[in-house]
Amino acid sequence: MIRNPSWVLRSYPSGMPTVGNWMLEDRPIPEATKGELLAKTLWLSVDPYMRGRISQAKNYATGFGVGDLMSGGGVGEVIKSESPDFKPGDIVVSDYFGWQPFTTIPASSAKLVAATDAPVEASLSFLGMPGLTAYFALLKTGDPKEGETVLISAASGGVGQIAGQIARIKGLDPVAVAGTDAKLEWCKQLGYRECVNHRTSADLVADVAAACPNGVDLFIDNTAGPIHDAAMLNLNTFGRVVVVGTVALADRFDQPDIGLRHLRKTLIARARIEGFLLDDHESEFETAKADLLSWFKQGLFETREDVIEGIEAVPYAFVRMMNGENFGKQLVKL
Amino acid sequence: MIRNPSWVLRSYPSGMPTVGNWMLEDRPIPEATKGELLAKTLWLSVDPYMRGRISQAKNYATGFGVGDLMSGGGVGEVIKSESPDFKPGDIVVSDYFGWQPFTTIPASSAKLVAATDAPVEASLSFLGMPGLTAYFALLKTGDPKEGETVLISAASGGVGQIAGQIARIKGLDPVAVAGTDAKLEWCKQLGYRECVNHRTSADLVADVAAACPNGVDLFIDNTAGPIHDAAMLNLNTFGRVVVVGTVALADRFDQPDIGLRHLRKTLIARARIEGFLLDDHESEFETAKADLLSWFKQGLFETREDVIEGIEAVPYAFVRMMNGENFGKQLVKL
Repeated sequence: MIRNPSWVLRSYPSGMPTVGNWMLEDRPIPEATKGELLAKTLWLSVDPYMRGRISQAKNYATGFGVGDLMSGGGVGEVIKSESPDFKPGDIVVSDYFGWQPFTTIPASSAKLVAATDAPVEASLSFLGMPGLTAYFALLKTGDPKEGETVLISAASGGVGQIAGQIARIKGLDPVAVAGTDAKLEWCKQLGYRECVNHRTSADLVADVAAACPNGVDLFIDNTAGPIHDAAMLNLNTFGRVVVVGTVALADRFDQPDIGLRHLRKTLIARARIEGFLLDDHESEFETAKADLLSWFKQGLFETREDVIEGIEAVPYAFVRMMNGENFGKQLVKL
Repeated sequence: MIRNPSWVLRSYPSGMPTVGNWMLEDRPIPEATKGELLAKTLWLSVDPYMRGRISQAKNYATGFGVGDLMSGGGVGEVIKSESPDFKPGDIVVSDYFGWQPFTTIPASSAKLVAATDAPVEASLSFLGMPGLTAYFALLKTGDPKEGETVLISAASGGVGQIAGQIARIKGLDPVAVAGTDAKLEWCKQLGYRECVNHRTSADLVADVAAACPNGVDLFIDNTAGPIHDAAMLNLNTFGRVVVVGTVALADRFDQPDIGLRHLRKTLIARARIEGFLLDDHESEFETAKADLLSWFKQGLFETREDVIEGIEAVPYAFVRMMNGENFGKQLVKL
């Protein structure tokens, strides 16, 4: 009998998640019913937004209950199709891959992974959610003008690495914030002009000021926390902050976000602080993917994935990503 | 000899300003030089934004130094003109009236007060800075859709009273926050659907929720502080916050604004928080004034000024306005 070890939520994390918040169950291979696909999982993606789905706090997506099978972004091969739109052998990407080797997904959530020069797992990184998030957060919500300084936190992560390179391609002045010197060195290779290590900085406000001598015009905020304060205190008149993620709050997720409130600064700078959700840009996904793929083919892009192997490692991969221990987009290969 | 008692800044306030931060000096009647007007001051306006000008913190306007003559919005009659654009007898409004009975103002800052059905001091209230601020903050930066719930803090003040009535005229659902029952009663007369007294409320978040059963779509934030938190925690998806003023911070003006930071809420709601400065809308002032005057003539507007008389009372008027003790737009009549 083929095993299908599956991760279910054991308990809601209080503070930073640990691998003990999940447990592995031996489940049967599920049956695809009408409108579903049975798929063999090839890649799973773990992403900061999933922290919000293992919480009882209100979120933009419905969360998991204790005992529920976990699911998230994945790429797999269709084994059996109960939908006229897919056939066995198709490679598909969906946000609803169970954390299990064989899984059913709603056909309506699946997209065919087109054969391109990029590997299939790119649909979980620069051609998928992180790349599209970078694209729209930077170019649309961020509304950048040529030459503007763009500060990006979690700068080598799934979203940050693409945002920094799009900024370079578009003639902006990208500045990185990340947590290790190795990450920052790689950020420089990607084309970030300057880098700030938020873990070793003794004065983040001063270090951001030194790295951004013309001030910060646009801040792509993947983290919240003290980096947010340092960006706000260096924000130029008509500066913008795009709130993409709050990974720095992972260890106090269900508690209020404390720290400075920057309403005077917002007023004086006529700043705009705006929340970002990728789903709101769905009508323009194809245009964005075409741009991203074209830049990739022209060699304008470098990407880095941090790959861990085996279904057993999924919670571990999630937890290390939440702790910033990954280097590049965190993926799990089955 | 004609006396010209003039208010100068004696010291920067630490915390809430007191009348002791100014002193009255007997100064000569000034001479108008080229490009200036000598005017007899009829009305002076005291407004929350002036708190930022008696501080050494960075602001959008240059501040006053210790010993400087104070100035602000005023209406007066031209006595002598060193500009081809004005002649003696003209009634003008300017943001640069000295706090003195006879004052010089740059002709470039002056606007003729047109003869309308409104009294001349209306150019310091609903036809001036407060009215225009309400107009653009609500209708432009706030980007409201018909039927949306608009929460307005300092709801009976210079900006709030106009914002609430424009909201009613435009088919929105205005809800007031103010600090006395008398103010809230008047707010109901103006057309606010519901009112919250932030001074007597035991649970501001719950009281805002009760007053806004469909949530808050737009918050016109004249105050910052705990009212900001209550609005944020009730903000709907795609909600907007227009940061117009921070009067609740008056007693801790040069210190960081503490309290909850709402980045998770901003992200989940895809909210937009934006600073507002009236100067950025100057090209549309005439359109706005025409609208405001037309509503006034149609009897759609009620306005309330809180008038104190005499040059001696200017700092007192300013301080009581900062403490929320005024009822309606605070003016000083000379």
